[in-house]
Amino acid sequence: MPTAVTKPRLTTEDDITAEVLRRFEGTEDPRLKQIMQSLVKHVHAFLKEVQLQEAEWWQGIEFLTRTGQMCDARRQEFILLSDTLGISMVTDLISNRRPAGATESTVFGPFHRDGAPEREYGDSIVAADRHGMIAYFYGRVLDLHGKPIARAELDVWQAAADGLYDAQDLSLIEMNMRGKFKTGPDGRYLVKTTRPVAYQIPADGPVGELLAATNRHPWRPAHVHFAVSAPGFWPVTTHVFDSIDQYLNEDAVFGVKNSLIAEFKEHQTRDEAALKFNAEPPFCTCEFDFVLAPAQ
Amino acid sequence: MPTAVTKPRLTTEDDITAEVLRRFEGTEDPRLKQIMQSLVKHVHAFLKEVQLQEAEWWQGIEFLTRTGQMCDARRQEFILLSDTLGISMVTDLISNRRPAGATESTVFGPFHRDGAPEREYGDSIVAADRHGMIAYFYGRVLDLHGKPIARAELDVWQAAADGLYDAQDLSLIEMNMRGKFKTGPDGRYLVKTTRPVAYQIPADGPVGELLAATNRHPWRPAHVHFAVSAPGFWPVTTHVFDSIDQYLNEDAVFGVKNSLIAEFKEHQTRDEAALKFNAEPPFCTCEFDFVLAPAQ
Repeated sequence: MPTAVTKPRLTTEDDITAEVLRRFEGTEDPRLKQIMQSLVKHVHAFLKEVQLQEAEWWQGIEFLTRTGQMCDARRQEFILLSDTLGISMVTDLISNRRPAGATESTVFGPFHRDGAPEREYGDSIVAADRHGMIAYFYGRVLDLHGKPIARAELDVWQAAADGLYDAQDLSLIEMNMRGKFKTGPDGRYLVKTTRPVAYQIPADGPVGELLAATNRHPWRPAHVHFAVSAPGFWPVTTHVFDSIDQYLNEDAVFGVKNSLIAEFKEHQTRDEAALKFNAEPPFCTCEFDFVLAPAQ
Repeated sequence: MPTAVTKPRLTTEDDITAEVLRRFEGTEDPRLKQIMQSLVKHVHAFLKEVQLQEAEWWQGIEFLTRTGQMCDARRQEFILLSDTLGISMVTDLISNRRPAGATESTVFGPFHRDGAPEREYGDSIVAADRHGMIAYFYGRVLDLHGKPIARAELDVWQAAADGLYDAQDLSLIEMNMRGKFKTGPDGRYLVKTTRPVAYQIPADGPVGELLAATNRHPWRPAHVHFAVSAPGFWPVTTHVFDSIDQYLNEDAVFGVKNSLIAEFKEHQTRDEAALKFNAEPPFCTCEFDFVLAPAQ
């Protein structure tokens, strides 16, 4: 019988891999071509290494589909997946190689929201009545030579004392525990907030199921998020972690770096800090200087 | 200052990878542990090889999110992604190593639907009035020794002559081009359908954007889908491809195997086949025997 069959066809797994790589050869954007070919090579290597079975492939398709469908304006389940697999931190390390002395970055996380309200020096981000201990978080934004940066912006966000972000708790006031601060001419900022608490990442979706199935806990050590930027400088998105948190060595998303750990001092009496911040004890204070590298 | 910092923390990409692998050590299911650790190892190797940048990571998160959100009861964009990256075919090859002589499997694809109507020997699956050339698709279902298998089920699905499956074209009658057939005591089946046509996989979603960005065409060679099963036998999900199709060597989803290519004979006159099938010329015929291996 005459047919159009003129060449041997793909018969092995390695034939398939070679052919998929060949199909991406025509990609005009060299970076996209590099990324797609590398992705195919490594994902195929995974399939072959574990000898993935069809039923497992189905589970994977279903998992990814549900992960996408869990996402909306308040929930980003794929970022959570990336975070819990260490993908976010590896990417962060690769793409944020800063000069020595500059504040290190860490995971962005799924809970940032655009449009946080602008606040004045010393304003509180605690819009709703919560039970956390009041904390005065203060310090400077500096350049690599230790010179203060005026009018630097600090976009701050944090979980409330119950461990939930406002995006997770519809009973909270909108933009609770969020605010954008600007440094003064001396590079100083002051944020009134509550002492951060360790919390669980949202475990009611596919990522939570994965953590449960693999016997992993969903806890993150207590931290405050900062995105710090200033004209002419390389912005940094990072956290400051509470130095006494029990999960510092076990962050569910691998985000802790030594340089990002700071002490939250507790004040039980009307001490010097109480006078300085006009604070009622008990309260706590945390001092942290951010150092920005010049824009690249 | 006293702090809980008692060990050096993760500082390099390789530290992160090692720590993520360690976190999966407690997984009780050994298979899940193997899969997750291998996946992490290979995905991290990809990130490091291409030195993935944050903006590219964002594009990936956004792509996967949209892919999940494109999925519904009629559309499975993640299967399409898996198919176009050759993931489906590698998995198919790995998990369907059948004995010599058994009909080979190929991609399941995103267009199967449960609950296709049961049809009698010789029934037509062409429920809507289309323009394709009528085709009589017939043959036997056999065991490895060539013995006919009675009451084998053939779940058949196919794109219509315009290249669309009923799931894609809401103007079509439900379950158009679908049906479940049973073999008779002689192992024979006969399906009246139309000659399959080459078609484009759906290009209006994220996967279509990826194909366009990488200069890849979305065409699949003409084929009919079959899922063939019988009690005591290993079911096979496969296609039969038209031997003169121009895309046999360029299937967008890498599904073509030599053993799955068959000739569609055209009949222009009232020949013997016209009498046998009581057919009006022009029409075509395709004969294909399916061979099932015993259940494992």
